[in-house]
This record gives sequence, structure tokens and C-alpha cells, in this order.
Amino acid sequence: MTVRAAPSPEEIRKRNLAALLRHVHRDGAASRATLAERMGLNRSTILALTADLAAAGLVREELPGQTGKAGRPSLVVRAESERVYVVALDVGADRLAAARVGLGGLVLDQIETARPMGTFDPEDVISALASMARGMIGKAADAVCVGVGVAFCGMVREEDGVVRYGPNIGWVDVPFGASLTRELDLGLRVAVGNNANLGALAERERGVGVGLSDLIYLHGDVGIGGGIIMGGQLLGGEGGYAGEVGHMIVNRDGRPCACGSRGCLEAEAGELGLIAAAGRTDRAGRAAVEAIVEAAARGDATARDALHNVGDWLGYGVANLVNIFNPSMVVFGGVLRDIYLASAAQVRSRVAVDGLQAVRERVRLRTSTLGGDATLIGAAELAFADVLTDPLQTLARISAGLE
Amino acid sequence: MTVRAAPSPEEIRKRNLAALLRHVHRDGAASRATLAERMGLNRSTILALTADLAAAGLVREELPGQTGKAGRPSLVVRAESERVYVVALDVGADRLAAARVGLGGLVLDQIETARPMGTFDPEDVISALASMARGMIGKAADAVCVGVGVAFCGMVREEDGVVRYGPNIGWVDVPFGASLTRELDLGLRVAVGNNANLGALAERERGVGVGLSDLIYLHGDVGIGGGIIMGGQLLGGEGGYAGEVGHMIVNRDGRPCACGSRGCLEAEAGELGLIAAAGRTDRAGRAAVEAIVEAAARGDATARDALHNVGDWLGYGVANLVNIFNPSMVVFGGVLRDIYLASAAQVRSRVAVDGLQAVRERVRLRTSTLGGDATLIGAAELAFADVLTDPLQTLARISAGLE
Repeated sequence: MTVRAAPSPEEIRKRNLAALLRHVHRDGAASRATLAERMGLNRSTILALTADLAAAGLVREELPGQTGKAGRPSLVVRAESERVYVVALDVGADRLAAARVGLGGLVLDQIETARPMGTFDPEDVISALASMARGMIGKAADAVCVGVGVAFCGMVREEDGVVRYGPNIGWVDVPFGASLTRELDLGLRVAVGNNANLGALAERERGVGVGLSDLIYLHGDVGIGGGIIMGGQLLGGEGGYAGEVGHMIVNRDGRPCACGSRGCLEAEAGELGLIAAAGRTDRAGRAAVEAIVEAAARGDATARDALHNVGDWLGYGVANLVNIFNPSMVVFGGVLRDIYLASAAQVRSRVAVDGLQAVRERVRLRTSTLGGDATLIGAAELAFADVLTDPLQTLARISAGLE
Repeated sequence: MTVRAAPSPEEIRKRNLAALLRHVHRDGAASRATLAERMGLNRSTILALTADLAAAGLVREELPGQTGKAGRPSLVVRAESERVYVVALDVGADRLAAARVGLGGLVLDQIETARPMGTFDPEDVISALASMARGMIGKAADAVCVGVGVAFCGMVREEDGVVRYGPNIGWVDVPFGASLTRELDLGLRVAVGNNANLGALAERERGVGVGLSDLIYLHGDVGIGGGIIMGGQLLGGEGGYAGEVGHMIVNRDGRPCACGSRGCLEAEAGELGLIAAAGRTDRAGRAAVEAIVEAAARGDATARDALHNVGDWLGYGVANLVNIFNPSMVVFGGVLRDIYLASAAQVRSRVAVDGLQAVRERVRLRTSTLGGDATLIGAAELAFADVLTDPLQTLARISAGLE
């Protein structure tokens, strides 16, 4: 352990600016008095920090709505959501999505393109994403884009945005982040993350898991990805690839999986497992899952049995994760939200039978409150990371690059 | 995020004393110059810190061994291993063990008692452990005991040492730490931890995983426990019970497990699974495992098949953990060391088939270098925690309690 020197006044100011901006970004507009209390700083320091951030165009002060209190109302500090934004992109197995998200988390614009399942050519994906992003940026000429983040449905090396493995769209070792950075040519490095990891962060910041330290987010599209937050930190592992819970084998003699193994959780309890169990020939995708859930609700015995069976496998997977991680919450997102809602009794029953008491007694099973947007919102948070770490420098760097 | 005030000089001194003591405890004797370099402090600060620790009897300075260099040799700072020690205890399913371990990690004394498998009465265990501990403490009248730590083969609530669940010895919600503290009456709180968690810490501090940030330690006795270190931190989960990888279900229709489920990893790949697969009627325990391994080595086909079968299940468990955690190393300890060594081909083959490439390409599978003592050494480290956090205060508090 080395002992560090006390931070310089300039370093303290940078940290405080970042902390204040994070507060209004995450928790919404707040009065200076509230910010002073939350941050443990005095009001004159808050005043100075707010003035700096306002001068940079990152926040503004304005009258709050009606408070019902007598006397002069205190001004609130609010993020400049219309003026400062990021572009969030999402590459799923059957869709591309894009959003323009303002500082403070406000979704300003959003588009989605369904795509046929199967192998995606990286160049096509990059050019489609760039075109979606450019369209959104073009509509916001008087605002500043401070970051671009992408959620990707596979294993990503975060430091350089290389997709190591995206089995459901046929990618291996694709330099995705670098290519998209070049194609967009915004003077901003495009940050790429695993979609389930980003979904986990989004649910913890703005969704059903706000404030939780030990949370597992399970994202279903064709596959099942896991984003695992333990002790407040996203689990990375040696290379940043932790969380591939979809390839936990639950059934040695089970269905073949796109990864080459058999009986993986995603093969048994994901979209494809459900479609096969229901004896359907639909292509995978949210519509196919919805059709089975609706058929079961109408009383179709085959559909009901398929959901029962898939729910049981999902329950094995969840019980295993509960025993391994002792999480306070497991969140089901993407199409896994629909699958879980239609098979919750089986899932809960398996956790009750196979979870050890000390861990199962405290875990809550919940569906994503951000719905299909969890991964996209997580991508936006990834894109905001730089400006929330060093607001003024990041803005200055971006302005210099744009001039 | 609140912003903290800079630490006081007194707080900085406390932290530096702790950091210096941790260096000599963990890495062995070192010259003041080496310590200055490692800690990023100047030599006069090191001199003052060493003097304080030496006055308290925690370290001494002495001539090093022959260095081969000309000139006046530099004194080295060495932990007072004979003078300052902890008592480490280990409750396994088939043994009780105790050690007196000196500061610096030197095992000064060690005893072990084999016990028949089955339900243990908590009072018997507490009185046996207390008697072992007292015997050791009695032989060290001129030294000071600075902590007592226990490794327990089950789920432990660390803050108060309550055993929530020890299926293999039949304990549920036993206030073990408090009872042992009372029984020993040393003026020291007995700290209790899960044995696999402590084994993981021991292997990372002093064993095969030194310096690794992402390590899984699998400990086999009757059950299989997991200690998981991710990003340098032991995985705790919401209640501190994370790591129960032995109850990951790998075979839905498999063998019954002591936890009430079927097909848990420990039922398929642990001692009992191996004994059953080999068609033996031996009681569980290290001797039974060794007998099967020896029979297989002599060419006994049944024993060989049993190890093959068990190794295959162990491989499924390890492949799942590799996909879920992306660890840099998986360490096999306790009887799992023997089982792994005799079935490594099956385990490795499963990981090669079922591990995703980006995670399997970097993971190393290794056996514990601390052998059967990993959990006991981990218990010693747990017992040293207080004195390594605040050396002088802890010592003062203990002295006051003893006087």
C-alpha cells in the first residue's frame, strides 16, 4: 500500500464539480441547500461549483415548481438536458436501437430498427448505427454531444471496444468500437459495453434496483446475458467478461446452444428453448415469445406446458445464481421479463426448493422497470462517464475537437 | 458522494503503522530502504514508524543473512513472530484443527483431531476447541495472543459469528462465535468465517494465487465450498453468504444432497459422490478418497470409472464458474485437491469444451499449495485483522484487558 499525498485544491475542485453534476444527473433537480447537505459541503462552496457548471452550460438554476411553502422559494440546480446529451446505441440479436439522451437521463429522441435474426455483417451494422446516430445529431444542432455509448449482445473487451464473441450474430474478434469511432468521426471515442452489464447498471441507477449493492440483472434476447453488481461494483473478472450466466450448463443432455455446448441456461430457458418447447417454427424474437405467452393465457396446453418447462429451467439457473452470489435482487429484463412473468410460479418454486435458506430468504425476484430500454439507458450512462468524471475538462476537450 | 476532509496527522500515522506492519507480516523481513520504496515514504518516516512498532514489541530490527554485498549491511525489519501470535481454529466435517501462528505467518504449533462424521453437538465442539486453544496458549506464557479466528465448514454470519447453516455437521443458527468467545474468556472476540472464503484469502496472500485479483478457491471436505475473490475483494453478497458453489445444481436428476436438493455439485463431484460412484461403503473422509485414488492408480477399473465420472461433473461445475466469473485461476483445495489431481484430464476437457473462448483461454487450474492448511491459515489471517488495521491501539486494548 502506498500512501498518497493529500489532493490539491484543483483536484478537490474537479472532484466536487463531478460529484455535484452526478447528483443532479442521477437524482434530478435539487436546491443548493439540499446539495450542500447531500455532499457534506457548505453553501458557499456549492454556490461556486454551481456557478462554474452553469458557466460551462452543464446546469442552470431556476425556480422550482409550486412547493406550498411561504416565503421566497429556493432556486433549484437542474441539468441542461436539452443542451448536453449523449448518443446511446443498442445492438441486439434482432434489433438496432438508438437514443439521444440528455444530461439528467431524459430520453430526447429514440428510434429502433427490427432486423432479421442471423449473421450480421459488421460493416452493415456499423453503417446503420452511424446513420441512425447522424440523423439524431443533425436534429440537435444547438446542443453538444458529450459521448457515444453502445450496448452489445456479446462479450466485449471494454478498453478498446473489440467484440470478442457475439454468437447470436456471428461475430468473433470484431474491432467494433474503433470502426464505429472512425465512421462517426465526432472526435469522441465510442465506448462499447456488454448489454447485460449496462442493463444492470441502468436498473441500479434508474430502475428497480436503485441503491442496491448486490444485484443480478438477467437480460434475454436470443441469448441470456447477466450483469452482476456485487458490493456496488460491476463484476468484471480477469478480462471483463464475467457474467456469462447464459452459458451455465443446467442440463447436460439438453438442447444444443449457439456456443457449441449443450444444455446451457440460454438454450433451455431462453427464447429458442421456449419456441422449441412449444413446438413452434417461428423465428426467434420478442413477437414469438409474446405469441406463446398469449396462447398460454388463452388456455393452449402446449404453450402452457412449454412455459412451465422453461420456467423450471430458468428456476434452476436462478437458484444456482442465488446460492453462488447471495444477491438481494434478481431482475428479469428483455424478453426474459415476459418469460418470467408467465412462469413465475415455477421459477419461485425452484428457488424455494433449491435455494439455501440463508440466501433465499432475502432475495427478491423482480422484473425490469426500464423494460426493453434498460440496455439502451445503460449505454447512455456509459457515454456520460467522462463528463461525469471531469465535467469542465471533458467539455473543453470536446469543444476544442469540434472547432 | 460525500467529500471527506483530509486525514489528520494522527490518522495518517495509524495508517502508516498498519501498512508497514502488513508489509513485514505478508512479505517477510525487509530493510528500511525496501520498505521506504514499497510504501512510497521517506526513510526518516520509516525509521520513526519502525521505532514505534519495535517499542510496542511488534517488530524488531536485526542483521540480515549474508548478502554477498560489500559494506555495512542494512538492518532488516522483522515481525516478532515468537512474541505476537494468534490462535487459528478449523472446524471441518471430519476434523478439528488448531494452530498457533506468529505475526508474519509462522506456524508455531499445530494440532489436529479426527472426528467421526455426522452430527456434532455444538457444546462438544466448543469445549474441544477451547481445550485445544488453551493448551497452545499455556505453552506460550511470555507471548501475547492478539486474536482468535475460526474457519467453519458452512454458512457464517460474520458480524456475530452465528453459524446459519452447516449441513454436514447438522448445525442451524448456532451462536458459535459468541459461545466460543465466552468459553475462551481471553478478552478477545473470536472471529468466525466460512472455511472456503478463508482458504481463498490464504491462497491469495500466501499460496498459489499470490497477487491475483480474480481467483476462485474450491474447498472439498464432505461438501464443496467456494471462496471467490473478484477485483481483489472477497465476494460477500447481501448477507455475506456468497460462494455456495457446492449447491449449484449440475444434474437435475442426480444424487440427493445434504441440503435437501438433488444433483448439487457437491453431491456429484464431492467425497460422497466419489464414494458412491466407486460403489464403496466407506465413511466419507480423506482416507476414503485416497483409497479410491490409489485403487485407480493400481488399475482398478471401478475406481477409475468413478474418478472419470466425478471429474466430468467437477468439470461442468468449473466450466460454469469460469463462464460466470472469468477468473484468472481456479484453485482446488482440501480433498478436492486429490480428486482434481486424479481426474484433471476430465475436468480440463470439460472446461475446453464448455468454457467460452475469451474466458477459458486465460484461466489456470491449480491445486492449493497450502494443502490441508489453507483454511487454518486463512483463519489466522482473520485473527490478525485487528492488529494489522490499528497495531498500537489493538495491542493497548489487549494489554488493558489482560491486566
